[in-house]
Amino acid sequence: MSEQQPVGIGLVGSGFMGRCHANAFRSVSGLFDLPVTPVPVMLADATYELAEQSAHQLGYKRFTGDWTELCHDPDVDIVAVTAPNALHEPIVMEALQAGKAVYCEKPLSTTLESARRMAKAARDANALTLVGFNFLRNPLIAFAKQMVESGELGEIVNFRGRHAENYMCDPSTPHSFRTAIDGGGALADIGSHIISMARYLLGDFAAVSAQCKTIHKDRPVAPGTSELKPVEVDDITNAVISFKSGASGTIEANWAASGRTMDLSFEITGTKGAISFSQERMNELLVTSNDPKRSGFTKIESGPQHYPYGNFCPAPGHHLGFNDLKVIEVAELLQAYAHNSFCQTDFDEAVEVQRIVDAMQQSSREQAVIAI
Amino acid sequence: MSEQQPVGIGLVGSGFMGRCHANAFRSVSGLFDLPVTPVPVMLADATYELAEQSAHQLGYKRFTGDWTELCHDPDVDIVAVTAPNALHEPIVMEALQAGKAVYCEKPLSTTLESARRMAKAARDANALTLVGFNFLRNPLIAFAKQMVESGELGEIVNFRGRHAENYMCDPSTPHSFRTAIDGGGALADIGSHIISMARYLLGDFAAVSAQCKTIHKDRPVAPGTSELKPVEVDDITNAVISFKSGASGTIEANWAASGRTMDLSFEITGTKGAISFSQERMNELLVTSNDPKRSGFTKIESGPQHYPYGNFCPAPGHHLGFNDLKVIEVAELLQAYAHNSFCQTDFDEAVEVQRIVDAMQQSSREQAVIAI
Amino acid sequence: MSEQQPVGIGLVGSGFMGRCHANAFRSVSGLFDLPVTPVPVMLADATYELAEQSAHQLGYKRFTGDWTELCHDPDVDIVAVTAPNALHEPIVMEALQAGKAVYCEKPLSTTLESARRMAKAARDANALTLVGFNFLRNPLIAFAKQMVESGELGEIVNFRGRHAENYMCDPSTPHSFRTAIDGGGALADIGSHIISMARYLLGDFAAVSAQCKTIHKDRPVAPGTSELKPVEVDDITNAVISFKSGASGTIEANWAASGRTMDLSFEITGTKGAISFSQERMNELLVTSNDPKRSGFTKIESGPQHYPYGNFCPAPGHHLGFNDLKVIEVAELLQAYAHNSFCQTDFDEAVEVQRIVDAMQQSSREQAVIAI
Amino acid sequence: MSEQQPVGIGLVGSGFMGRCHANAFRSVSGLFDLPVTPVPVMLADATYELAEQSAHQLGYKRFTGDWTELCHDPDVDIVAVTAPNALHEPIVMEALQAGKAVYCEKPLSTTLESARRMAKAARDANALTLVGFNFLRNPLIAFAKQMVESGELGEIVNFRGRHAENYMCDPSTPHSFRTAIDGGGALADIGSHIISMARYLLGDFAAVSAQCKTIHKDRPVAPGTSELKPVEVDDITNAVISFKSGASGTIEANWAASGRTMDLSFEITGTKGAISFSQERMNELLVTSNDPKRSGFTKIESGPQHYPYGNFCPAPGHHLGFNDLKVIEVAELLQAYAHNSFCQTDFDEAVEVQRIVDAMQQSSREQAVIAI
Repeated sequence: MSEQQPVGIGLVGSGFMGRCHANAFRSVSGLFDLPVTPVPVMLADATYELAEQSAHQLGYKRFTGDWTELCHDPDVDIVAVTAPNALHEPIVMEALQAGKAVYCEKPLSTTLESARRMAKAARDANALTLVGFNFLRNPLIAFAKQMVESGELGEIVNFRGRHAENYMCDPSTPHSFRTAIDGGGALADIGSHIISMARYLLGDFAAVSAQCKTIHKDRPVAPGTSELKPVEVDDITNAVISFKSGASGTIEANWAASGRTMDLSFEITGTKGAISFSQERMNELLVTSNDPKRSGFTKIESGPQHYPYGNFCPAPGHHLGFNDLKVIEVAELLQAYAHNSFCQTDFDEAVEVQRIVDAMQQSSREQAVIAI
Repeated sequence: MSEQQPVGIGLVGSGFMGRCHANAFRSVSGLFDLPVTPVPVMLADATYELAEQSAHQLGYKRFTGDWTELCHDPDVDIVAVTAPNALHEPIVMEALQAGKAVYCEKPLSTTLESARRMAKAARDANALTLVGFNFLRNPLIAFAKQMVESGELGEIVNFRGRHAENYMCDPSTPHSFRTAIDGGGALADIGSHIISMARYLLGDFAAVSAQCKTIHKDRPVAPGTSELKPVEVDDITNAVISFKSGASGTIEANWAASGRTMDLSFEITGTKGAISFSQERMNELLVTSNDPKRSGFTKIESGPQHYPYGNFCPAPGHHLGFNDLKVIEVAELLQAYAHNSFCQTDFDEAVEVQRIVDAMQQSSREQAVIAI
Repeated sequence: MSEQQPVGIGLVGSGFMGRCHANAFRSVSGLFDLPVTPVPVMLADATYELAEQSAHQLGYKRFTGDWTELCHDPDVDIVAVTAPNALHEPIVMEALQAGKAVYCEKPLSTTLESARRMAKAARDANALTLVGFNFLRNPLIAFAKQMVESGELGEIVNFRGRHAENYMCDPSTPHSFRTAIDGGGALADIGSHIISMARYLLGDFAAVSAQCKTIHKDRPVAPGTSELKPVEVDDITNAVISFKSGASGTIEANWAASGRTMDLSFEITGTKGAISFSQERMNELLVTSNDPKRSGFTKIESGPQHYPYGNFCPAPGHHLGFNDLKVIEVAELLQAYAHNSFCQTDFDEAVEVQRIVDAMQQSSREQAVIAI
Repeated sequence: MSEQQPVGIGLVGSGFMGRCHANAFRSVSGLFDLPVTPVPVMLADATYELAEQSAHQLGYKRFTGDWTELCHDPDVDIVAVTAPNALHEPIVMEALQAGKAVYCEKPLSTTLESARRMAKAARDANALTLVGFNFLRNPLIAFAKQMVESGELGEIVNFRGRHAENYMCDPSTPHSFRTAIDGGGALADIGSHIISMARYLLGDFAAVSAQCKTIHKDRPVAPGTSELKPVEVDDITNAVISFKSGASGTIEANWAASGRTMDLSFEITGTKGAISFSQERMNELLVTSNDPKRSGFTKIESGPQHYPYGNFCPAPGHHLGFNDLKVIEVAELLQAYAHNSFCQTDFDEAVEVQRIVDAMQQSSREQAVIAI
């Protein structure tokens, strides 16, 4: 392993997701047998001071208050973008122009046009891209996909999906980038997770019919103020969907879901069986077949038989956590980098997800069924 | 109690639901302190021989192969209708004409027009009516309704409902009254349960947008034959709904739901809390409030604090079963009979449920949002 | 069925269990196809007035304040004893002497000697007897027993059992027959349920090592008083057990179990699989085999394949309740009566359960392992 | 943070736990704001070749086939011992003699005498020690301890504990260090986890009464052979226990538990409430109080309010995994190192756990209650 190629990482942003990326790059080599080794090269943040502080903590020797510098640094091979959503496009464009691979947090963009520009630039640059739809990295989700594709469940006829959290329940929670009109609300923020999940498992959508709803019509303009500003994005979106395969279903995106912290969940119904999953119990997949004697669901726990669980622990019963999903994502990125291949959730995929978000918003405005 | 007024019961039909009615009338006086006592008077079935055999088993001394006779028998006060759906209207009309109270199994009818004719006839006759939406009789459902109405959950913003069973999963399951075009498929057969539940808990619907889907395009014309006939009704219906109150939501009706035997379930989201229920665990209600320290759901078990659980058992921990719900329904019927009042799920309510079923079918045909 | 033999029922007591017996006898003929028909003949209670009132409500035409009269009534065939525990022996002895079959609530007695006298009297009289261990009547428990006996689980190696409720949590709950020294405390009151369950499923005990513990050393002498009296019985008993088969295990009896209303539960471990059950979800049995690919538990719901569920409902998904277990118990009693056979939980079985209760108490006193 | 003191890590062993330690040391600085920084200095393994390979993968520049060399290396400050159990004592003794802090995997030793020798040596050397009882590092376990100690649950009266896994179910699983007579079987291997948990939450044991049982009397001497050798250790141990506080309970250790992969679980009953936990759902704690209106358990999910969850993720709903527990353990070790303090699960604690294991074995041999 001494001949491993070093890959220089440039990290833009060091908030929740920035730290998460940094830790994943730090851990991945101890857990995966990779042909390349990520090396922390440079960290950029909003200011030089912020960058300096985070760089020390996260193990980056060089730092900058100017992400342009980072994008063009010759030692940087992969630019990891965890800056606020509104900055994704300029950073990504600069990095692509500089010939870098780009690992961007979701949502890639908040508008379809912007996402398409980035995807086109990436194709033009023949660049490796990855958007952080981390929940897809769960070994049990890969297992679910195998079950779907193997035919074990028969023909898939229905998908009942949801991403529900409670972080915007409280009307006194102020406006933020999440409630900006370009941000798109619950549907764009977390609905994109269940949409990407649905696409990963069942393929292309055919049509959507959605209702976007704003529960709290006004929110404080900022933390600690009583001044209110109208909310123009959805708190809850419900949609009936159909897939090109012929399957139908529903999707709910809800960030005002009292009692739910991470109900990214789905039930997939096939003619011969079904599977059920919730991220609230991310190490369990419920599976059933239409055996009349044993019709109930069987709880399958994640274990070494579900790659790459075994990289984290050789024995069953030792659960994975959220941060482990990010490590798997980073491993996928580095493997694609080394093998000059591509990632499943690349910019093109992010465009497809955004198209569905847009179509749902249009459906709600026009009260019509929208073909994808 | 010696002065209790006897109430004569005429039972039409002795299949699954006929037996269920008979047993409920038999048990109710031992469990409820009622001002009237039901007396089994006469049983009618498709033939004299069938009627004779069932009458013996179910404790009816008189029997007949002609339900007209039963409807006009002077000792019969309440006609309980458990005959096949297609016969509901003629029997109900005859019973109303004879001045009887009518207890009819759901669906009251398979077409909106028919249901409306019956409801009108009942109003004209000033007759007591009850349609058997038995799942609403669960003491925990009454408790859920109290929670909704007390404001404890804040403003109700979303309803995520479903009735999913697996009894039509198998494409070799033949046609029956359920798949007749007038029968209406999964939506009419079991979707009506979750629609009545939604109305009971959250009130009138405002609009629906639905997609009805036939999974198995052909089924055998009868048991044991290979001759196939096209299916013209839905196996799965998904719908986005809205209520007059402003709440939104989704409803799924699915009789091809692998692994599900009775997932009549819902999650009601309010701005201050939420409740979650599935008939698969009918003695449990999950409740949460937006207390940041204890955000998870609390499992509340049915107990003596939830009337009329205490009529069945004075101690908590002793669960109710499905047949107990039917006893509660019959107690409600007899109390209304004695007090000359009315039942919540009367024929008018059944018409409202049928209107929504019809609107969903129309929405699917026309690919449009339909106002109720 | 017109030739069905009537069987006269004499009911002693009309509290919680008395009503439960009356309702079970009332319902059973509509649910089971029995060769005999129970007829309510006479009800006895502590006073003539009490008996009169209950007789009216429960459908008994004759009544008495003197159970001796009931025991010798020529129309009474079966004496159902639901009087306070301390009266079980005199009533049972009188009924046996009068040549009646006896259906006695549990515990048969509160001392081993008393139970043995009753069992001997029953054998001498060649009388049919049944003690109300109702939880054994669950169709899923019969199914569990089949799994154990079929060898499907391999050799059974461990039993982890418990009966935990919270009805004596509160130290202000006063003394009652349950806390009388002869009553035996939590172990006798509810421990007997899990002991009878263990015996039903795995057979004879070989030895026990137990610790009986009193949590609340004093309780009010009666409701509404502040006068305290010491408690001499256990609130919690924990025991290590072994079976003649070689299996080992633990049993807990706990009536001060905060948060538990009916955790009569067990996990049976075999060398090839396991089953897990709790009365808190009495319609679910969790089953697993040592299949490495699917090692988790499968939820099996009660359904028509589990006799006699189908007598209550022909379709799966319609759960049984506690009162239904009592109906099954009564059906077993009447079938044994008609066929001149015997019941599994007869007086001899009750003696065996009491022997184990006694041995656990002795083990705790002597701090020693006690062979059964 | 630039002034952070480096702390040299010497890692002995690179199997399952060796990798786990290495990854935890690698990750910890990105997740915890520590006054010291762990630096991977040297890795020792059974052979030079093994050590070389692992060192490359795990990021250790220096390596050796001789752990003595590692123990005396001047750059090594903490010796992490993950070698086979039988080697723990010589390695630990050497490291203590060289003045190092010692981080040893559990069990510290397989005999009480050996554990005592090590604990004494550590005290004599005034050395920092930590034994890897990783399951105690769960933020929800700390929260459970707070609930116990705050009095919120009232007086604690019962502990029902278990560690059950299925890895030795199969009789063809061969002998290993686990089944060596000194290894102590299921009780020592995994029973020690639930014993340490019980001690952490409820304090010192007063007495035990146990039954140790060997299910599979013979196992293959080695993988791939049919030659059998008798098993002299327990597969299942059941025990009744009591605490100095007066609480009672049971403990089960079972490595032949079909269907269980990590049922390290307990229910703690207090006079005012209860808590229930299983490692199979390590991000959930079930809590109840004796509120008569809401008697059921509430599911509390791990979140930022449970330190140090927030170090891994600032938002709720993002679950921790097993490897995260090891990072928390390593953070505790490094904090104690920096502050010259001690760790809760030091060698003295490991001795206490081993004393209870020994007492249970003695209790089973002598069929007697053993005071601790």
